Amino acid sequence: MTLKHQFFNDYSEGAHPRILEALIKTNLQQEPGYGEDSFCEQAITLIKQKIANPAAMVHFFSGGTQANLVMLASLLKPYEAVIAAKTGHIYIYETGAIEATGHKVITLESSDGKITPEQIKAVLTEHNTYHMVKPRVVYISQTTELGTLYSKHELTAISECCKQHDLYLYLDGARLGFALTAQLADLTLADISRLTDVFFIGGTKNGALLGEAIIINNPQLQENFRYHMKQRGALLAKGRLLGIQFLELFRDELYFDLARHANLMADILISGIQTCGYRFVVAPTSNLLLPILPNDIIEKLQTMYGFFIRYKISPTESVIRLITSWATPETAVTEFVQDLKKLAH
Amino acid sequence: MTLKHQFFNDYSEGAHPRILEALIKTNLQQEPGYGEDSFCEQAITLIKQKIANPAAMVHFFSGGTQANLVMLASLLKPYEAVIAAKTGHIYIYETGAIEATGHKVITLESSDGKITPEQIKAVLTEHNTYHMVKPRVVYISQTTELGTLYSKHELTAISECCKQHDLYLYLDGARLGFALTAQLADLTLADISRLTDVFFIGGTKNGALLGEAIIINNPQLQENFRYHMKQRGALLAKGRLLGIQFLELFRDELYFDLARHANLMADILISGIQTCGYRFVVAPTSNLLLPILPNDIIEKLQTMYGFFIRYKISPTESVIRLITSWATPETAVTEFVQDLKKLAH
Amino acid sequence: MTLKHQFFNDYSEGAHPRILEALIKTNLQQEPGYGEDSFCEQAITLIKQKIANPAAMVHFFSGGTQANLVMLASLLKPYEAVIAAKTGHIYIYETGAIEATGHKVITLESSDGKITPEQIKAVLTEHNTYHMVKPRVVYISQTTELGTLYSKHELTAISECCKQHDLYLYLDGARLGFALTAQLADLTLADISRLTDVFFIGGTKNGALLGEAIIINNPQLQENFRYHMKQRGALLAKGRLLGIQFLELFRDELYFDLARHANLMADILISGIQTCGYRFVVAPTSNLLLPILPNDIIEKLQTMYGFFIRYKISPTESVIRLITSWATPETAVTEFVQDLKKLAH
Amino acid sequence: MTLKHQFFNDYSEGAHPRILEALIKTNLQQEPGYGEDSFCEQAITLIKQKIANPAAMVHFFSGGTQANLVMLASLLKPYEAVIAAKTGHIYIYETGAIEATGHKVITLESSDGKITPEQIKAVLTEHNTYHMVKPRVVYISQTTELGTLYSKHELTAISECCKQHDLYLYLDGARLGFALTAQLADLTLADISRLTDVFFIGGTKNGALLGEAIIINNPQLQENFRYHMKQRGALLAKGRLLGIQFLELFRDELYFDLARHANLMADILISGIQTCGYRFVVAPTSNLLLPILPNDIIEKLQTMYGFFIRYKISPTESVIRLITSWATPETAVTEFVQDLKKLAH
Repeated sequence: MTLKHQFFNDYSEGAHPRILEALIKTNLQQEPGYGEDSFCEQAITLIKQKIANPAAMVHFFSGGTQANLVMLASLLKPYEAVIAAKTGHIYIYETGAIEATGHKVITLESSDGKITPEQIKAVLTEHNTYHMVKPRVVYISQTTELGTLYSKHELTAISECCKQHDLYLYLDGARLGFALTAQLADLTLADISRLTDVFFIGGTKNGALLGEAIIINNPQLQENFRYHMKQRGALLAKGRLLGIQFLELFRDELYFDLARHANLMADILISGIQTCGYRFVVAPTSNLLLPILPNDIIEKLQTMYGFFIRYKISPTESVIRLITSWATPETAVTEFVQDLKKLAH
Repeated sequence: MTLKHQFFNDYSEGAHPRILEALIKTNLQQEPGYGEDSFCEQAITLIKQKIANPAAMVHFFSGGTQANLVMLASLLKPYEAVIAAKTGHIYIYETGAIEATGHKVITLESSDGKITPEQIKAVLTEHNTYHMVKPRVVYISQTTELGTLYSKHELTAISECCKQHDLYLYLDGARLGFALTAQLADLTLADISRLTDVFFIGGTKNGALLGEAIIINNPQLQENFRYHMKQRGALLAKGRLLGIQFLELFRDELYFDLARHANLMADILISGIQTCGYRFVVAPTSNLLLPILPNDIIEKLQTMYGFFIRYKISPTESVIRLITSWATPETAVTEFVQDLKKLAH
Repeated sequence: MTLKHQFFNDYSEGAHPRILEALIKTNLQQEPGYGEDSFCEQAITLIKQKIANPAAMVHFFSGGTQANLVMLASLLKPYEAVIAAKTGHIYIYETGAIEATGHKVITLESSDGKITPEQIKAVLTEHNTYHMVKPRVVYISQTTELGTLYSKHELTAISECCKQHDLYLYLDGARLGFALTAQLADLTLADISRLTDVFFIGGTKNGALLGEAIIINNPQLQENFRYHMKQRGALLAKGRLLGIQFLELFRDELYFDLARHANLMADILISGIQTCGYRFVVAPTSNLLLPILPNDIIEKLQTMYGFFIRYKISPTESVIRLITSWATPETAVTEFVQDLKKLAH
Repeated sequence: MTLKHQFFNDYSEGAHPRILEALIKTNLQQEPGYGEDSFCEQAITLIKQKIANPAAMVHFFSGGTQANLVMLASLLKPYEAVIAAKTGHIYIYETGAIEATGHKVITLESSDGKITPEQIKAVLTEHNTYHMVKPRVVYISQTTELGTLYSKHELTAISECCKQHDLYLYLDGARLGFALTAQLADLTLADISRLTDVFFIGGTKNGALLGEAIIINNPQLQENFRYHMKQRGALLAKGRLLGIQFLELFRDELYFDLARHANLMADILISGIQTCGYRFVVAPTSNLLLPILPNDIIEKLQTMYGFFIRYKISPTESVIRLITSWATPETAVTEFVQDLKKLAH
């Protein structure tokens, strides 16, 4: 059975062609290893301009779980813990990677993937003795694991709460591009750099072969960071591979253009699904959609398209997950909508 | 100051052009993530043929330190330890990556980077109480960190020693290509698969952008291995990137051809250096050379070529390290030899 | 302000006089260290008789957190996790001790401190991929952290669920004495040994200076256990200190008599509190009581007695915690009841 | 076969009678748990007087391995390592306890159990890159594992080296009493407190049932230390047990008297052994002796006395270990010497 298109993930294809061209063009240039090459250097300079934070430190990772575990392990003393939504990637989908570095993830209930200052404060109130871990980092994702978005107002409130209570704020930006270019977006890279201690700009899900750029805004957290990376196996010998890609993504507007495309393709899906009268588990705002569809229609869609079924929400309906990417052709989403309309008819 | 050529490392350049072409050709094909794609599947099939071990399990890693730490952490119970030469990469150059997973590295003295069954047995004799760690894995590198080579006779002896004493044998093959194609080589991939519990075939240092293929020969060590990988941040979302490269390297003789070239370039350096009357710290057998040169000559060479000085060996002489790669042009090595001859004159 | 009596904890006093006498009597006898002494040997023999399990392995620990972390770390592979009630001691009151050994604690909602096979099965259903940890151990406490009790029927059901799904069952018996001698008790030491893979018999809270006896019923989990203990700093040089105490506690019925006394003292408190018309958060069954009292009465009680206030349950009422022990004098509980009656009047 | 006396260890007996009496006298006093009791408070006040350092922080541990692992794990960032003699207890006899907390032990050669500033500096010179761990703590033992002693001159030199290179100095005082009361002793408790960042005063080997008093002299290392202790299972519920003992040991000169006795008993052995014409592996200075005796004599001695044979030093001779304690009767050592003289005759 050949599928018309797959909406499984935003990492189902290779890399944007400009990235592959950049790899070819630079291929035989001899460079130092471990991220000390000239491409990483240039990419870091560019990123520091884009985030308007010359004092930031930038390092490149191979993937999100790796970035999360190395970064959090570097932020926390043995008895300190990280606070996250129960839906947070670090809590649920990283095979205990954070715990494997020795730290507890304290979870907060969340129906939309987001957390609030009030929830954070409640955790601090509860954790008031040396018989319990000491919360020290707040972890949020932008966009969240449910495809939702923190507004500038919301992120500012969390940021102030963290500053006030001596907590570090860490933002997982595996899907940051989609957040920055969403219709509702009111946060710039500079805002995010200003409001967080650490965040990362995801490349893997937005056109790179692999790569996440960790930005350490807080100067107190920058010291000896390469030691942490090396110790966890996170320094690529050919670090150039990451530098070249981020250089290409941020040389102009490519990073934003790719994310904007994915969001536009998602918008077509959203309005098509809504036209057919279907709801979403949470209001869709980016390239990750969680529509609720009748089970029989899901079954028929699966013969034509690839996507994940998340869970049954009623005896006759389930939640499915649709994801668009930089590489999603417009024909794929319009065709999906047409097919859905026929089935929903 | 522009250098004529750099002999710093075998990962100073990008990837062999055929690998880049393969990336381009497969770029828009939609594939599952995390190494479950069709390219990884094909590459694994090929590798299992080359090692003549259909029962082996193969997984792809981004780098050697990552492969070492994930693999060793999976082999060891909390109180168990790994035995290695004092020159072993895991002991000296991985920022305590193994210890960070909770395990001691028991070291053996070694002047040539190799260890012997007698040394292993002495460790077992010494570690005879629950007040000490329990040795469980023997770690060796092929080629070693000093560029030397285990012979079939030597590897067989270590393998038998391990089997006899219930130890796992783990071979770090970051530079395995150079070992397999060295002039003195008498071990095949099939031999290595047969004689070890686990080993890896290094791609990063032999023409890939990144990538090491871990081979788990011992079926008892294969279970749930992806859990270990994910937990340590070692599963790439676009795992295809590793599959495509190994598929290209092992589709024909490319992997061996690239290593052979590096060794040939090294041979030119070796005979040139010997002709000039200089010695080596250990007899050179592959692409990593440790010649002993007068300090004044080293100083002049450094204005023309890139290489590391390892340490002073006498008041007037130092050991330098020269490494060739798949990408080293023959002109670079012949020119180096000519320049050395002029200086030595 | 001198208090009439403290109901803070069952470890507020020293040890039962017979234990101190035993220490004196054996004091100058020369013995091997680290639990290899003749007293430990005798105590182990006794305990194996009491649990009717000659194949069990017994080791002595200094405290509950220590026993929990060493035992669980020994049971779990790096990617495996333990399931516990959200109220479980290992989750909430051990400063992340389990996570510090690298493992996630998966939590289950619980209003009475107990968990059910259905909840365990739901966790297994959810954890179905290598992107998530793999549940491997079920942790329960008897009595629970809320002073409640698993019945034989309940424990049998959990035990069967664990066996069926290849999970280890671990029972934290820090307050096991109170469970075994509770009015509702229908489980013997032999039952518990038969139904669990591992459990411990708490001494610290039942008349010893310190000491918890870990019983490893499952033979597959016994190997090399002393290595785990030593590595975590859990082997006392003068292990005799633990052996002597457990020998004294189990030489006759002392262990049970001490717990029975605590429960009887609690019963007096319970009926007194009920007589005054006050409720409990959960029905009290052992020596740990969670009555709900008016705030003004609590305030007055605090001038006479020591106890913890747990949380406000309504604008005018709070939950307090009262604990009795082997050393609680009957006069203390009858006086408390009289004082409460006066205040409640 | 009944032995006349055992010289295996200084922890072969129970506790000094005064300690047992103190336990009895305080037994029913109700006290807070976890080291917050009044006995610990008094003991801490006394110890701070004895070390002449009112700004120090004192905590009580159950044993040396526990103290070492908790303390070192609290001092080190993930990529940092501790430097120790190859004979150091943390390297060889703690089942990888330090590595289990994630840290490498960098070892220095030593024939007498001691290390020098020159060796420390050489380690710093070698560890100059993020590919290697970063040394941060220097670990020494006083007396050493070979029974030798750092002089004031030596300790001062190490202390200055550490200060100069931003290293913490940690002194394992499991046998500190014997060091402080040795004939060659020129260091007081106040000296040691002034010259180290952290050290501990061993009780287990000097008359206590169990207990080591960690002294954190450096104020920057004191914060939140109880979190570390709780997380590693090192806080006793009945912390009073440790407070009462140290209070008794330091109420007057008991701690010093007990150690002095052990040293005196050792002196009788030393002169007896020397009189017989036998040598020692290192010059004996405290209660741990390493004489070299003919194998046939050792064999006969073993029928009368308990002691460990360490290793064969020649075809006909071996090194044995004799240890005296606070409880060693003078008759035991004089009889040993007489028996040896007869055999040596």
